Amino acid sequence: MPRAVDVIRKKRDGGALSTAEIEWMVGGIARGDVADYQWSALLMAIFYRGMDRAETVALTDAMMRSGVVVDLSSIPGAKVDKHSTGGVGDKTSLILAPIAAAAGVMVPMVSGRGLGHTGGTLDKLESIPGFQVDVTLDRYKEILRETGLVLIGQTKEIAPADKFLYALRDATSTVESIPLIAASIMSKKLAEGIDGLVLDVKTGDGAFMERLEDARTLAETMCDVGHSMGKKMVALITRMDQPLGRAVGNAVEVAESIACLKGEGPADLMDLSLDLAAEMVLLAGLAGTIEEARGACERTVEDGSALERFRHLIAAQGGDPNVVDDPGLLPRPRRVVELAADRGGCVARLRSRPIGVATMLLGAGRARVDSSIDPAVGVILHKKVGDLVAPGDSLCSLLVDDESELERACEMISDAYRFEDGVVEAPTTVVIDRLVAGLD
Amino acid sequence: MPRAVDVIRKKRDGGALSTAEIEWMVGGIARGDVADYQWSALLMAIFYRGMDRAETVALTDAMMRSGVVVDLSSIPGAKVDKHSTGGVGDKTSLILAPIAAAAGVMVPMVSGRGLGHTGGTLDKLESIPGFQVDVTLDRYKEILRETGLVLIGQTKEIAPADKFLYALRDATSTVESIPLIAASIMSKKLAEGIDGLVLDVKTGDGAFMERLEDARTLAETMCDVGHSMGKKMVALITRMDQPLGRAVGNAVEVAESIACLKGEGPADLMDLSLDLAAEMVLLAGLAGTIEEARGACERTVEDGSALERFRHLIAAQGGDPNVVDDPGLLPRPRRVVELAADRGGCVARLRSRPIGVATMLLGAGRARVDSSIDPAVGVILHKKVGDLVAPGDSLCSLLVDDESELERACEMISDAYRFEDGVVEAPTTVVIDRLVAGLD
Repeated sequence: MPRAVDVIRKKRDGGALSTAEIEWMVGGIARGDVADYQWSALLMAIFYRGMDRAETVALTDAMMRSGVVVDLSSIPGAKVDKHSTGGVGDKTSLILAPIAAAAGVMVPMVSGRGLGHTGGTLDKLESIPGFQVDVTLDRYKEILRETGLVLIGQTKEIAPADKFLYALRDATSTVESIPLIAASIMSKKLAEGIDGLVLDVKTGDGAFMERLEDARTLAETMCDVGHSMGKKMVALITRMDQPLGRAVGNAVEVAESIACLKGEGPADLMDLSLDLAAEMVLLAGLAGTIEEARGACERTVEDGSALERFRHLIAAQGGDPNVVDDPGLLPRPRRVVELAADRGGCVARLRSRPIGVATMLLGAGRARVDSSIDPAVGVILHKKVGDLVAPGDSLCSLLVDDESELERACEMISDAYRFEDGVVEAPTTVVIDRLVAGLD
Repeated sequence: MPRAVDVIRKKRDGGALSTAEIEWMVGGIARGDVADYQWSALLMAIFYRGMDRAETVALTDAMMRSGVVVDLSSIPGAKVDKHSTGGVGDKTSLILAPIAAAAGVMVPMVSGRGLGHTGGTLDKLESIPGFQVDVTLDRYKEILRETGLVLIGQTKEIAPADKFLYALRDATSTVESIPLIAASIMSKKLAEGIDGLVLDVKTGDGAFMERLEDARTLAETMCDVGHSMGKKMVALITRMDQPLGRAVGNAVEVAESIACLKGEGPADLMDLSLDLAAEMVLLAGLAGTIEEARGACERTVEDGSALERFRHLIAAQGGDPNVVDDPGLLPRPRRVVELAADRGGCVARLRSRPIGVATMLLGAGRARVDSSIDPAVGVILHKKVGDLVAPGDSLCSLLVDDESELERACEMISDAYRFEDGVVEAPTTVVIDRLVAGLD
């Protein structure tokens, strides 16, 4: 039987931990014979020394098996999920899940809440009146079987070791470690009972992995881990230099998602959602090529079947499906404030992070895990990179309830814009790279 | 007000912590707003990133002030203590304290217990029938004033933050960090109320710092810290390649110490004890040169005044002072086993660590902090480096009560010896180097 102090020493001195040692340390959380202060010392040693592929797989596997691993084998069809590392205005889950489901993929999606400058899928869904994200695992399977998709929050049964380790990492400055990030994400996702997973690993100003090389390493690590555990994996590395789409907030992002499902959304958001949904269709084996898969996804928007799926999902999870026809039923702010440009030119940059922070200040996001959020507030960006602006034009609309931080939010958003006198090309795609593992 | 998570991040990324940050982190132990798992992550970051001089001083100071800092200013005379990093057969405290006291130094000594292969002064003293090492700080002052020396255990009032951090380091493999070792030792020693401190930093097989360069760095760091906090400091770096003296155990080391105080001890032990005592006399300002100080110390042995001091100390701390005249009053083992040499030659090496471990196996030391010890058992080495051995000669006498590990202990001791056919010179001195800080 290993001793925690010896396992810590081995990693401290740069050794590779065995699968037995890793299993014993993760098991020690529930057994109670590995103390939190021993785990935090090990986490710091891993921060410095890293973990090789076998260690990362063993850690992911042990964390996954710390809780329930859902068995979806009784439900026919290929189950494929998507995970994004998080960004500003990133509401692709709400769009691609109904699209992929309408194209025949079973989409069992367990999502998280927003923290800091990035939003969370659960918070957005909860802005739909009545929508329930906390359902039992039995009901989760039932909704998936009936609707072809389900979007819930992490239950206590899923990867409890991850919950423990994540809180510890957050309190000990050991978050930014690629093997620890990969194991945290993958242990939860692989516990969902999926056959394949599409990753959206974001890079740039508003992303968790600001540097492209870090995003690439994280994507490779997660694909490796998933593949080692028998899953089909695709990762897209995508730009988060400016917010995705025009809406940043909760209800306002649901409204933009509905617009996308009607074929009326902004091009960058629509494109990325279709790209990711197409990868899910491909992983599910429902198309021979990515082009074919993409075509199938586009048709679900054109024929309205994706929008129908979203309507069914909302109804199945207790929400008011009429929001699909009348987004005015979503929570609305007390006041809308226009932010006027104080100079003209072409938008050369629009940094994501300050837009995310400004939206959080308005009440749409959480500064701390236990903060509450206001579903009605947020920002609608009227000008993005490549757009021409005349002095006095509205750069964005601020949807406001509590005005205490309004001035600061306006300053941050103004500072996030940079103008040039010449013409700046809008980026044609947000996808930078594509990694594949386990697909023949 | 700093946040623990930010302080950890700063050190993690190689920054130097401010005095305010270090004070806040150490204070957080008692306040309860810095968790043990945050401290252990910081300890691991310090293990990798180190601490500069100012950080180490701030940590020592904060740990010292976590408890009572004894004020000995009402007691006349210079107060000087000695600290050894620990070795096998190292009983110099029992010899040099009475010598230095007899030479006019006030010696307020707070000592530790043995752990692993090294012995502890308190355990040795407690083998004297009736001797009390747990006394209040008031009684500690009283004994010092009356006797000129006092030898007690660490009380709960002294540096409680060190107790907390030491236990945490022990459980998280963060012991071997020079700034952490220096701060741990110095915070306790400086809380004693001393004016000067002599350090015996051991190096070699049986020492905590096996490599000379590590011993030198630790000695320099501790001298630096002590000097920065206004103390006079001397450090001797000494060899721990073979055990010091001939006795290893508890009662048996007391008996050898009494022999030394009578001028009848082994040369290596006698020399080092006089060297260290002379440094104490010099630090106390009672001699102009080290040679003069050494002469004064030698005279306390010749005229019996050092032995008289030891007798008074034993009586003051509740022990039976007759052991000084009749060491047969000390605990005796059930059985004495001679270990015969299976070959002849000259002793070329006699490794300390296996001798220490073998003695622990016989019951003289602790494998764990909560183990109990047997004061009567131990080893008397008849052959040391440079001695000629004929096959069948006794290498050592084993003083035995519990025989369950006797065979293993004999094997370890046999393996600790290495013989050569030619003549091997016995080392002339154990002192390798001398560092001084704060002496004009």
